[in-house]
Amino acid sequence: MENLIYLDHAATTAADSRVVEEMLPFFTEEYFNPSSVYTPSRNVRNKLDEAREKVAGLLGARHPNEVVFTSGGTESDNYFIKGTAWALKEKGRHIITSVVEHHAVLHAFGNLERQGFETTYLPVDRYGMVNPEDLEKAVRPDTILVSIMTANNEVGTIMPIKEMSEILKPRGIVFHTDAVQAVGSLDINMQDLGVDGLSLSAHKFYGPKGVGALLIRKTVKPVPLLHGGSQERHRRAGTENVPGIMGMAKALELAIAEREERNREITRLRDMLIKGIMEKIPDTILTGHPEKRLPNSASFCFRYVEGESILLMLDMQHVAASSGSACTSGSLNPSHVLLSMGLPHEIAHGSVRLTLGKENTEDQIKKVLEMLPPIIKRLRDMSPLYAAEKSPTVKEAC
Amino acid sequence: MENLIYLDHAATTAADSRVVEEMLPFFTEEYFNPSSVYTPSRNVRNKLDEAREKVAGLLGARHPNEVVFTSGGTESDNYFIKGTAWALKEKGRHIITSVVEHHAVLHAFGNLERQGFETTYLPVDRYGMVNPEDLEKAVRPDTILVSIMTANNEVGTIMPIKEMSEILKPRGIVFHTDAVQAVGSLDINMQDLGVDGLSLSAHKFYGPKGVGALLIRKTVKPVPLLHGGSQERHRRAGTENVPGIMGMAKALELAIAEREERNREITRLRDMLIKGIMEKIPDTILTGHPEKRLPNSASFCFRYVEGESILLMLDMQHVAASSGSACTSGSLNPSHVLLSMGLPHEIAHGSVRLTLGKENTEDQIKKVLEMLPPIIKRLRDMSPLYAAEKSPTVKEAC
Repeated sequence: MENLIYLDHAATTAADSRVVEEMLPFFTEEYFNPSSVYTPSRNVRNKLDEAREKVAGLLGARHPNEVVFTSGGTESDNYFIKGTAWALKEKGRHIITSVVEHHAVLHAFGNLERQGFETTYLPVDRYGMVNPEDLEKAVRPDTILVSIMTANNEVGTIMPIKEMSEILKPRGIVFHTDAVQAVGSLDINMQDLGVDGLSLSAHKFYGPKGVGALLIRKTVKPVPLLHGGSQERHRRAGTENVPGIMGMAKALELAIAEREERNREITRLRDMLIKGIMEKIPDTILTGHPEKRLPNSASFCFRYVEGESILLMLDMQHVAASSGSACTSGSLNPSHVLLSMGLPHEIAHGSVRLTLGKENTEDQIKKVLEMLPPIIKRLRDMSPLYAAEKSPTVKEAC
Repeated sequence: MENLIYLDHAATTAADSRVVEEMLPFFTEEYFNPSSVYTPSRNVRNKLDEAREKVAGLLGARHPNEVVFTSGGTESDNYFIKGTAWALKEKGRHIITSVVEHHAVLHAFGNLERQGFETTYLPVDRYGMVNPEDLEKAVRPDTILVSIMTANNEVGTIMPIKEMSEILKPRGIVFHTDAVQAVGSLDINMQDLGVDGLSLSAHKFYGPKGVGALLIRKTVKPVPLLHGGSQERHRRAGTENVPGIMGMAKALELAIAEREERNREITRLRDMLIKGIMEKIPDTILTGHPEKRLPNSASFCFRYVEGESILLMLDMQHVAASSGSACTSGSLNPSHVLLSMGLPHEIAHGSVRLTLGKENTEDQIKKVLEMLPPIIKRLRDMSPLYAAEKSPTVKEAC
């Protein structure tokens, strides 16, 4: 994939070679089940504990036991949201989230609705931002749980989590944040954010796929999703994915140690990309918040064209980009996030998300800036909508 | 771990180097999200489909779509059992399992009980075997689900799954089997077994930890455990663990291709071990069925001693063994499996499980046979119970 320009780091990232190196011994040498009693197993258990301490420390948990290792962001979200709702259902049945969450949160809420829970979906403004005042208005005496993402996966908008926590804390309402897109990219500290639950996924920050974590405050006891063995202090059964966990801890350590340096370059290139696109391609909307956005995130709607067509033409020129979330690609509906931000269907259809990573170079960005304007022009030239809009003659003929 | 004699293959196995080799490119080169639309992602998607076809073919599923990739055996068990119960709860609330299941099954049933389902736990005979007649007696018009393991993880007893399926099929009762210990070791064919659901876990057959599969017959639609993206045909959300899945498919392929050869040697060594122990150590009970047992499984109760003490002394001599399931080690209670088989507490406390694997050698088995008798003797010499039992004088003094 030497000539590939990968601009879909929000979908997934390549594992860092240092991460793979960290994992390797745990496949074939230190392969022991951490729950067994013999010395080699206890050594693995100790390393798992060190990884747990590392993750807890790097993300501002109060204690290593607040870290539960899972199979990824989706499991973390489902476990915290469903488990907390089930645990607190005698206290109340009202739960709150936002309209722009990842489907792992939205569909977990949908599942709870079918079980008799009542849901409020907070709106967002044109930048995809939840207004804490809307949250304050939505809370009720029977509200037991709120889940709002730290940063949006499609448009990169960073949510005012701390402000929302200040509304929820005095009311004793459990607060969860899906930080899957934020961890590794932003300075994430569970205590500073004031949340009771925080989900992360290793493959979003150059760690392996199939592993994630859920940070759970000691005061919250979600009903487990996976019952069985006594692993993870009875909160998540199943033999621990030791290589994956070791890899995730290493990836997180690297992401945080190198964050400022990585972000400096990524943001510079991202801003070059945004500036170039906005200057060179007319009728383009930058989606998401202009400043409060993830450092690597650039997302646009190109009017009069289909995002999918743009992606196909980029693909032909070895550029990997996305129209939104990878998890729902293949769906013909435009993004629920863009529609929630007030963009009309026909504009939301023209969405392209470019998310940068630590391997991207200035040369790659320049290439994309040369490549993209003719692609959009060609597609617009083929678009009857564009013709109708731009030529009064054709317009009348319609 | 050069001088280690690893006899705990039922707890976990070292990933085969060929499996790790298969996985490696998917960490750093073919790292793309299989749900994305660009060519490199579609290539990964194709390889995932090939892995799915392979797993389906090797395990006798009717169609590749009957394979759902999960994070392991525990998730597979929880998903099928809870999901099917939730899906069919209007049809009936009675569910059946056995007393000797893995905790992933038992505790999933326990969770369903707390939700208002009614459970029957089938007993086992002295060999740990469920009697199909007991199943026939237990089924009721409102029985919706039965889950019986293919082979027991502690004593290796192989259950009469096919016979039980013949009882359940005409009654239209959904039948699941936890085949976690059996896959790779026995010739497992979903259609031959006549089951609607079958759980497996890669790390039990020289694959990686953190990945497994659930085979689901098309006619059964369990409610998902993980809601979110549309992965796995909306049955299991979350970005696919591509390296893990590729590793699992490879490990399964190798296990099945090499099964006869592996089992021939493993069984020979296992029988040498059983014969040697039974001959050299008096007051020893071979637990599990004498013939219908997994080829690699040898399990014993040594009277008058604690299994944990034996394990510690074996550990000091670099032998890794177990007293039962790794998932519940640390618990002071004797195994629920051994108690269910009618063994009294004080005998069940003396349990040791030795499970062999493809790396074990005759020399290792000989070493264990030299090592174990003096260990048991020493422990018995220290045991007041043994003294009381064996010496009439001491007995009287008590």
